[in-house]
Amino acid sequence: MTTRPDPVRDADAETLALARSLLAEARYAALAVTDPADGLPGISRIAFGLGPDGVALTLISALSAHHGALMANPACALMVGEPGEKGDPLTHPRLMVKARAEFVVQDAPDRAALRDHWLAIHPKAKLYIDFGDFGFVRFAPISILLNGGFGKAFRIEPEAL
Amino acid sequence: MTTRPDPVRDADAETLALARSLLAEARYAALAVTDPADGLPGISRIAFGLGPDGVALTLISALSAHHGALMANPACALMVGEPGEKGDPLTHPRLMVKARAEFVVQDAPDRAALRDHWLAIHPKAKLYIDFGDFGFVRFAPISILLNGGFGKAFRIEPEAL
Repeated sequence: MTTRPDPVRDADAETLALARSLLAEARYAALAVTDPADGLPGISRIAFGLGPDGVALTLISALSAHHGALMANPACALMVGEPGEKGDPLTHPRLMVKARAEFVVQDAPDRAALRDHWLAIHPKAKLYIDFGDFGFVRFAPISILLNGGFGKAFRIEPEAL
Repeated sequence: MTTRPDPVRDADAETLALARSLLAEARYAALAVTDPADGLPGISRIAFGLGPDGVALTLISALSAHHGALMANPACALMVGEPGEKGDPLTHPRLMVKARAEFVVQDAPDRAALRDHWLAIHPKAKLYIDFGDFGFVRFAPISILLNGGFGKAFRIEPEAL
């Protein structure tokens, strides 16, 4: 298998625009972590949004399994871009981001601004955003891949977004 | 944090029925793997279906990143159960399955039966199912968690499904 071609291409302007819109529109994401209990891959659904600075953000409970996993090992991967009801779901574009989770402490100077911003894009979060176990986590991107369907995989430099 | 209660409960009959329907209805899944290139979590979207024997199944290309990852390390995690357009996506039930990937060889005696079964649930796969790089992968479950929304997490024994 050493001779197979790299099926991943570098992103063009159209691909970058698609990647930006997938990130901007996503309200939830799939999150892959390493489970500290057994070292195996784990997966969860998380709330998702871009912060005021454009950095990927979630609001998670300290009671969740992925919170414990990210505390133990902040390396993770996110996927956004949900298929619609029709067509082959694998032809629907999705963005996969390898990232490092960074916890926002409760007394961070920008927490109030993050809270207001989050409630504007996730109004239903008002039910739990002020619970003591909920906190924000930023995702610092390491590498980004856009899959736009079969044979349409593109790598994107984090700086490009 | 050692005193926090285990927020995960054992599944009841209603939860098992919900888990079965999530698996039966899913046509795609999020897949978490360990990337062999860097040891970091990776994530992808895959086609999904239950085989004739009820075992979780996908059809993937040998050119995909997750194929290489599963060949190097078959430990993985799957998530099925997609939110609808309305409401808080985190209240929509989803099933998370830690599993071990098992590749079905091209000359396996049951491959023809798997092919017919897959085309019945994924008719659009006829465009690529016979390409030489596409093959079936079974997921042998290790542990299963159902998240039915905040405070509604249940563990399910693989044998129970």
